[in-house]
Amino acid sequence: MDFSPSPRAADLTERVRAFLAEEVEPVEPQYHAGLAAARARGESWTPLPVLEELKAKARERGLWNLFLPKEHAGEYAARFGTDGGEGLTNVDYAPIAELTGRSAIAPLVLNCNAPDTGNMEVLLRYGSEQQRKDWLEPLLDGKIRSAFTMTEPFVASSDATNMEATAVVDGDEVVINGRKWWSTGVGHPDCKIFVFMGLTDPDADRHRRHSMVLVPRDTPGVKIERLLDTMGIHDEPLGHGEVSFTDVRVPVSNIISGPGEAFAIAQGRLGPGRVHHCMRLIGLAELALEMACKRGLERTAFGKPIINLGGNRERIADARIAIDSARLLVLNTAWKLDVGGPINALSEVSQIKVAVPNMAQQVIDMAMQIHGGGGLSSDFPLAAAWTGARALRLADGPDEVHRGVVARLELGKYGAKR
Amino acid sequence: MDFSPSPRAADLTERVRAFLAEEVEPVEPQYHAGLAAARARGESWTPLPVLEELKAKARERGLWNLFLPKEHAGEYAARFGTDGGEGLTNVDYAPIAELTGRSAIAPLVLNCNAPDTGNMEVLLRYGSEQQRKDWLEPLLDGKIRSAFTMTEPFVASSDATNMEATAVVDGDEVVINGRKWWSTGVGHPDCKIFVFMGLTDPDADRHRRHSMVLVPRDTPGVKIERLLDTMGIHDEPLGHGEVSFTDVRVPVSNIISGPGEAFAIAQGRLGPGRVHHCMRLIGLAELALEMACKRGLERTAFGKPIINLGGNRERIADARIAIDSARLLVLNTAWKLDVGGPINALSEVSQIKVAVPNMAQQVIDMAMQIHGGGGLSSDFPLAAAWTGARALRLADGPDEVHRGVVARLELGKYGAKR
Amino acid sequence: MDFSPSPRAADLTERVRAFLAEEVEPVEPQYHAGLAAARARGESWTPLPVLEELKAKARERGLWNLFLPKEHAGEYAARFGTDGGEGLTNVDYAPIAELTGRSAIAPLVLNCNAPDTGNMEVLLRYGSEQQRKDWLEPLLDGKIRSAFTMTEPFVASSDATNMEATAVVDGDEVVINGRKWWSTGVGHPDCKIFVFMGLTDPDADRHRRHSMVLVPRDTPGVKIERLLDTMGIHDEPLGHGEVSFTDVRVPVSNIISGPGEAFAIAQGRLGPGRVHHCMRLIGLAELALEMACKRGLERTAFGKPIINLGGNRERIADARIAIDSARLLVLNTAWKLDVGGPINALSEVSQIKVAVPNMAQQVIDMAMQIHGGGGLSSDFPLAAAWTGARALRLADGPDEVHRGVVARLELGKYGAKR
Amino acid sequence: MDFSPSPRAADLTERVRAFLAEEVEPVEPQYHAGLAAARARGESWTPLPVLEELKAKARERGLWNLFLPKEHAGEYAARFGTDGGEGLTNVDYAPIAELTGRSAIAPLVLNCNAPDTGNMEVLLRYGSEQQRKDWLEPLLDGKIRSAFTMTEPFVASSDATNMEATAVVDGDEVVINGRKWWSTGVGHPDCKIFVFMGLTDPDADRHRRHSMVLVPRDTPGVKIERLLDTMGIHDEPLGHGEVSFTDVRVPVSNIISGPGEAFAIAQGRLGPGRVHHCMRLIGLAELALEMACKRGLERTAFGKPIINLGGNRERIADARIAIDSARLLVLNTAWKLDVGGPINALSEVSQIKVAVPNMAQQVIDMAMQIHGGGGLSSDFPLAAAWTGARALRLADGPDEVHRGVVARLELGKYGAKR
Repeated sequence: MDFSPSPRAADLTERVRAFLAEEVEPVEPQYHAGLAAARARGESWTPLPVLEELKAKARERGLWNLFLPKEHAGEYAARFGTDGGEGLTNVDYAPIAELTGRSAIAPLVLNCNAPDTGNMEVLLRYGSEQQRKDWLEPLLDGKIRSAFTMTEPFVASSDATNMEATAVVDGDEVVINGRKWWSTGVGHPDCKIFVFMGLTDPDADRHRRHSMVLVPRDTPGVKIERLLDTMGIHDEPLGHGEVSFTDVRVPVSNIISGPGEAFAIAQGRLGPGRVHHCMRLIGLAELALEMACKRGLERTAFGKPIINLGGNRERIADARIAIDSARLLVLNTAWKLDVGGPINALSEVSQIKVAVPNMAQQVIDMAMQIHGGGGLSSDFPLAAAWTGARALRLADGPDEVHRGVVARLELGKYGAKR
Repeated sequence: MDFSPSPRAADLTERVRAFLAEEVEPVEPQYHAGLAAARARGESWTPLPVLEELKAKARERGLWNLFLPKEHAGEYAARFGTDGGEGLTNVDYAPIAELTGRSAIAPLVLNCNAPDTGNMEVLLRYGSEQQRKDWLEPLLDGKIRSAFTMTEPFVASSDATNMEATAVVDGDEVVINGRKWWSTGVGHPDCKIFVFMGLTDPDADRHRRHSMVLVPRDTPGVKIERLLDTMGIHDEPLGHGEVSFTDVRVPVSNIISGPGEAFAIAQGRLGPGRVHHCMRLIGLAELALEMACKRGLERTAFGKPIINLGGNRERIADARIAIDSARLLVLNTAWKLDVGGPINALSEVSQIKVAVPNMAQQVIDMAMQIHGGGGLSSDFPLAAAWTGARALRLADGPDEVHRGVVARLELGKYGAKR
Repeated sequence: MDFSPSPRAADLTERVRAFLAEEVEPVEPQYHAGLAAARARGESWTPLPVLEELKAKARERGLWNLFLPKEHAGEYAARFGTDGGEGLTNVDYAPIAELTGRSAIAPLVLNCNAPDTGNMEVLLRYGSEQQRKDWLEPLLDGKIRSAFTMTEPFVASSDATNMEATAVVDGDEVVINGRKWWSTGVGHPDCKIFVFMGLTDPDADRHRRHSMVLVPRDTPGVKIERLLDTMGIHDEPLGHGEVSFTDVRVPVSNIISGPGEAFAIAQGRLGPGRVHHCMRLIGLAELALEMACKRGLERTAFGKPIINLGGNRERIADARIAIDSARLLVLNTAWKLDVGGPINALSEVSQIKVAVPNMAQQVIDMAMQIHGGGGLSSDFPLAAAWTGARALRLADGPDEVHRGVVARLELGKYGAKR
Repeated sequence: MDFSPSPRAADLTERVRAFLAEEVEPVEPQYHAGLAAARARGESWTPLPVLEELKAKARERGLWNLFLPKEHAGEYAARFGTDGGEGLTNVDYAPIAELTGRSAIAPLVLNCNAPDTGNMEVLLRYGSEQQRKDWLEPLLDGKIRSAFTMTEPFVASSDATNMEATAVVDGDEVVINGRKWWSTGVGHPDCKIFVFMGLTDPDADRHRRHSMVLVPRDTPGVKIERLLDTMGIHDEPLGHGEVSFTDVRVPVSNIISGPGEAFAIAQGRLGPGRVHHCMRLIGLAELALEMACKRGLERTAFGKPIINLGGNRERIADARIAIDSARLLVLNTAWKLDVGGPINALSEVSQIKVAVPNMAQQVIDMAMQIHGGGGLSSDFPLAAAWTGARALRLADGPDEVHRGVVARLELGKYGAKR
């Protein structure tokens, strides 16, 4: 159980920290002001130019595609990775993900944001040579973006076998039909490729029925119906889309890893992605705690700094304990993934998916309360942080489903079949 | 301890229920769609015409100004009240407030929304004849709206003595300076009058230093700086404003109840207002529970209705228990206000202010979770309901301050001074 | 919804309060010391003489069998009740039960303790004339005690249909076999009669299979196997027994209300009994809160009364809110029982069974914490109070089963079958 | 951040696991039955002979004094330690402590129980040569036991400066007066030495006023007033005593590390001791979870294994998450102690002292609930486990004080003085 990053990773972490402090944090207030102004003009879906400037600076500093996984990065690490070096382990990358979580734009700037990282991993592990050339390389290059279209509006998508969308092989084409929502990234004008999941063979084994298909956004029959808000927040420039697919036809070669492989791919995709999500949330929770401490010490009421009123100091302590526990749980998961792969960390990946968003939601709620009315407003990043944490109690599977996985594995130790 | 409404109140409650079912609920989906469209055009601050139509219908049915308090309504009940009858007790009005809480627009439509009800009560109890004629009557008539400007951005407003705004008497004028925020109602074009609270005499007794002043919105020096959002939601058509007052001058006769009376007025204003807020939240929580039950029974996953998965049924039970407990606590508070006035219910008013928003936040969070991604979106009223409940953990005093009041009164039984 | 006691009940409540203050509280320390000394000598199952003295005093003051239910007390109220008057409603009796809950011995002293009250109610409602003469009258007279033997050690008794014990009719006798535990009252030397529940007809309808039988303790084949402890506490002088029944034969006329009636009887028995349990727990929680306030104000640490350290004052506030909410929930249940009987209050009875013991456990835990090490010891009544509250999360059905009942009734509103 | 034990420690852990499985677990049921029988005879303070037999076996297997700390064990490791090898780091010892926590007697059997381990550490680090020869050696040899007398009945001992006991130097003697309680170990007949803490110089600096003095139990003036129970449990054979010291005189050379050094010693003593306590509690929580899984799968109700009813599976998942998080938090604390000593882990030591007992209390409560009435009885180790966890929320400082430490260190990062 060794959670120490390699020396190279430790160095990269420090360089990310410096980059965020020097280049990103100073421009964030203007970024948010600019976005608010654009929103008031109805133009918030055009990314602000500063994002591309920051991307160029990050790349220049060799802080690019840091998410690239050690075991699969291969030649791409040399061509698109950082310093031309190899990819990082999950334990190595975790503290970097935590740092980027503190900023609403850092993941984008470092080309390390969801869902692009997950989609790039899928292509890296399962993509054909042509698929990688067409889509992985421009993604690694930061030239295009992608979406993952899985969740559906009319069924409980926590059970993926409920899925109504279809991807039917017809000769050398796949015919795609269905409606998806919560497809993150769809709002970005550079979002050029969708990873679509649908039913191919209803008669196959339960987990061999579905396929993942690469669907270019401009294929006829693909329609962005609308962009959803999460608790009033649109998460520009990526956004979350509702997308309909009507008799969409793409070549059979667009299926990733062949028909019926969607569940196998999803399984492999989710472990590291959840570690990333959780580490970013831990970064957000740390930011919230830091803000709570500072605000609580600055403002006074009834003759004292408000941090000294009532149970506020105990709340600070509880937040510290909760964050540190959660971080260790994620590091342990990262380490188990590194040493034994996804099968070695099934319970752990589900454990962090439950524990971390709940922890973050609670810590951020506390920080909001310390900030008074301001904490609810867009003057502070807390409201958006809270929304992000809350949404992650549903995204990638609701808490209840993950608790079910943990329980099944635990009870399995004593012979329970299910 | 008798929480039964009078027969007249029971009849009014049923008539409100019918009105909401027949007139309001059917148009709410269009209302929200219309508002979303207006928002996309940047025109969401112009109230949709349906609101005035519904107001006319409500008045026609005699469901107007139901909040008018029995003990102060006097002649106004006859002129502007319901059926020409008298005002209602807090116990009588509570179930009506609960019903209106289920709808985002019902309180407006019945002329029973915060902060206008509180401001009308202030004028009813403490306003001069002229003040009542100028402002109370048009408010009761639904012709204008009002705001209450108390909270300030640069100090912890949970301690009202922190207030930096000033209301200095200068001959027969009052000179007003300061900056306020979270002034609800400021976004509405009919919002014509502000109740401003500021420091008048720094040398007076701690609770005799501040005054409440009627400041017409169009007085020179008054500036709406911006409209704030709460967790991304703007609460049109009322909205929450940040307002600056720079050397604003109004006649001394605009002071309500005379200089130095602000704390005395605030004390009287808040009891019923908190009962109203809490009952409306209970209505929202009931709505959320109802939605959770229905959705949980309709959608299936893993071969079962999702309500039968994991701990979901226990969550339904816990929600029922929590709502019923909270309602009884509020009814008890209403009853104590009715039989003994605000002094009789100091602890109870603070108790419900803590208990009810926390309960509602939790019940709504549960319902959101049962709704999956939809629960986070504006497709359902849950996200806005959650935001409303969360905001009420700060509005009218944060939880922590109210817990402090309850503790002080409890420990006072054993001789504690403070 | 009127929770006010009748004038007679209000007067009785005040007389109970005075009796407890004048006669019971002053002797309780000696009682507990005497019991501890007896325990050290292995003689704690002989009731201390002071109990009979206090019973005589209570009866003299007309504070005897106050639990007698208005709708069933009939002639017994005149012969064994208080003042020769009629029985009380549930709303009337609730505040009296709350007061008796503050003392470990008051319920015994007033002849109002579980399980005797429940057994007396069963005989009152369902007993034959002979059964009432033989067992109800001496119980009302305080001459004997009784036990209710239902729970079994080898099956999950939360599902009563799991029951393995049998009560088979054989001619004019019933043959009884089985093993029961947690039979409260068995430790008392005056415990002369057991209400036994067992399977009579496995082929009958699910809820018509079991019978309740009166089994005198000295019937051959009845054996007290041992007295159980609850968290190390034996609850002398009643105690909780494990009892075996081996080919025990009693006349068929000992069956209450006839074979197969056990479930029907249990249903009627449990509503008021749960109200009593819950009100007593509320009394305990009030006592714990009172002790926490006093101790917290008396003891100092780090230069302040400990009640002013950290979040302690907020804990006092939360306890006050929790107790008041719980009391109102129980009063509402009592009122619903009074106006519509058990069927009218199915959900409410299960609601309080979940809410109140959990609330009490939490409030008492808080008070223990304020008392430091002392709070864990027998020097204070808190440890025993905690154990009582904890045990009631299982006794009369575990929380989870009651949450299931509440959920079933809630979901039934929307058409769910189960 | 490397939490892996050394190969030797990993081997010792496996050997402890085997010893417990082969020698301790099989005799525990008889041990508890024997103890219960002895208790019924009033003879429970005479240790059952099996304890000494097991101690001999443990020593024979080289599983003795495993707690000996690497950095201080020195020659004693060779003479009294395991295999003649050196002491273990905190990270090394942690998994061993976890294993011993599953058994009520294992810590005693391995000579690794509190408070003896803490007292031995004090002597090891701060004792004079003579003190070590007289008391440390027989303790390491398992021939005698010891107690730590610090907490006082009449003051809030969470603030150690409240202490009323005195240790006044008078020539070449120290005169000791005061009353202590919760002195663990006092009930054991082999308990020969007390580490007493008292006020020596009221005029010295706040943390230089108190001394620790070795007081042999048979010194005139020392009186065991009584043995306390914790929630009805006496924790034989060690027990928790109330002890009075009246004009007790011992040589000045009995002061450990000289007058005024008590706080300095206490600081050093507590870090590892809290890690041990917490790891043992984690062992208990694991045992409780294991029991809950097994019982929940075995027993059925309403046609299903009870683990599949309501939210039970989610509770299993939550318990797994809570235990794993807590273990990682303790391992991290152990590691910080190993690499930087107590000053490096001030916040962490307080964090685990809050987090672990609360976690264990909750997990054990859940397991009790799954066990129904049995869970409350002495038939299962759960009731005693719960009591142990609950007591540790007060022992070694209440939660609230430790939250205060964590908050102070956290706020100190932003310049807060206190």
